[in-house]
Amino acid sequence: MKVVTRDLELHTKGESDILNITEEIANEIESSKIGNGVVTIFVKGSTAALTTIEYEPGLKQDFPAFLERIAPRNIEYQHERTWHDGNGHSHVRASLIGPSLTVPIVDGRLTLGVWQQIVVLEFDTRSRVRTLVTMIMGE
Amino acid sequence: MKVVTRDLELHTKGESDILNITEEIANEIESSKIGNGVVTIFVKGSTAALTTIEYEPGLKQDFPAFLERIAPRNIEYQHERTWHDGNGHSHVRASLIGPSLTVPIVDGRLTLGVWQQIVVLEFDTRSRVRTLVTMIMGE
Amino acid sequence: MKVVTRDLELHTKGESDILNITEEIANEIESSKIGNGVVTIFVKGSTAALTTIEYEPGLKQDFPAFLERIAPRNIEYQHERTWHDGNGHSHVRASLIGPSLTVPIVDGRLTLGVWQQIVVLEFDTRSRVRTLVTMIMGE
Repeated sequence: MKVVTRDLELHTKGESDILNITEEIANEIESSKIGNGVVTIFVKGSTAALTTIEYEPGLKQDFPAFLERIAPRNIEYQHERTWHDGNGHSHVRASLIGPSLTVPIVDGRLTLGVWQQIVVLEFDTRSRVRTLVTMIMGE
Repeated sequence: MKVVTRDLELHTKGESDILNITEEIANEIESSKIGNGVVTIFVKGSTAALTTIEYEPGLKQDFPAFLERIAPRNIEYQHERTWHDGNGHSHVRASLIGPSLTVPIVDGRLTLGVWQQIVVLEFDTRSRVRTLVTMIMGE
Repeated sequence: MKVVTRDLELHTKGESDILNITEEIANEIESSKIGNGVVTIFVKGSTAALTTIEYEPGLKQDFPAFLERIAPRNIEYQHERTWHDGNGHSHVRASLIGPSLTVPIVDGRLTLGVWQQIVVLEFDTRSRVRTLVTMIMGE
């Protein structure tokens, strides 16, 4: 049984940027030599999140548009009173989607569907350097 | 420390079908002889998701009705331009809820509440054969 | 490789109570002497959930306000027909956010961002005693 961890740094372009990190995660699994187990991916910070999506241009517009409908940028957030940084909606969206994703590894490969990619969602209003922590456990 | 994986195939009836898989997961844990650890359940594909719910007829209507309100079927999705398959809302809902669920195992049992079941949510517009990957790790 | 589990009991004040459990989880990790691995936190029951948030007074209002907008208390839920306990919205919100959170542990510490706390969200309409299960795995 092994435990292999690595930090991954990403540059995001700010609000509604969606980054496909599937290949980076697959490469880390290959390097780890772990054949069967799980990888937990975690994004540090309270204005970004992780999920899976079919990474194609249409959905890269649809998913942010959906979030804008349910947690609009231009309504009043009490968070504004604490920080005055205009990103109340970013925090709400991040807590909704969540910072963590765990994916099984079987025979050294992620068990994703063919049209299913692992993505980081940047919700903050400005470009950020994001740290992802990947923790691979297995044998 | 052991790692036990198995694929589970499920037939869903399409849009808004909710399948209670608690017993199947409990049976796999029993077969694995793992007493303490976690099970990670993962649904392959980008139009289905996993969560827990009180599996009773009312909520089986309420949860899909909630999703129809926040991510309606009959609005415009850019995904449609890529594939013309009418399931933009299915993708949005799946990315929102997420494909992965991790549940602790204590003394060979899932640590669910009494009224809490593990469910697969089918969001695609047609019936599907779904593959779930279960990864049980522990001792 | 070690597996360490513990139950954590919490008293919540009912609807929209948000409890910061970061310190409790950090203490359990310290007690476990596990340096590298993951902690899975799971809330028993179908009307509470787990996520991370910047735990400050503004967002403690904004996140429940967001949920009230998308899954309002005072609309009709079919769940009401089963139980007549007025908490259909609580169940919907809990299934949306999810009962489980997995966070990496590196050098004996949670890999959270500086402004990122682990929280339990109580969605039920009354105060509850909640049981969280924490499962720490690693070496």
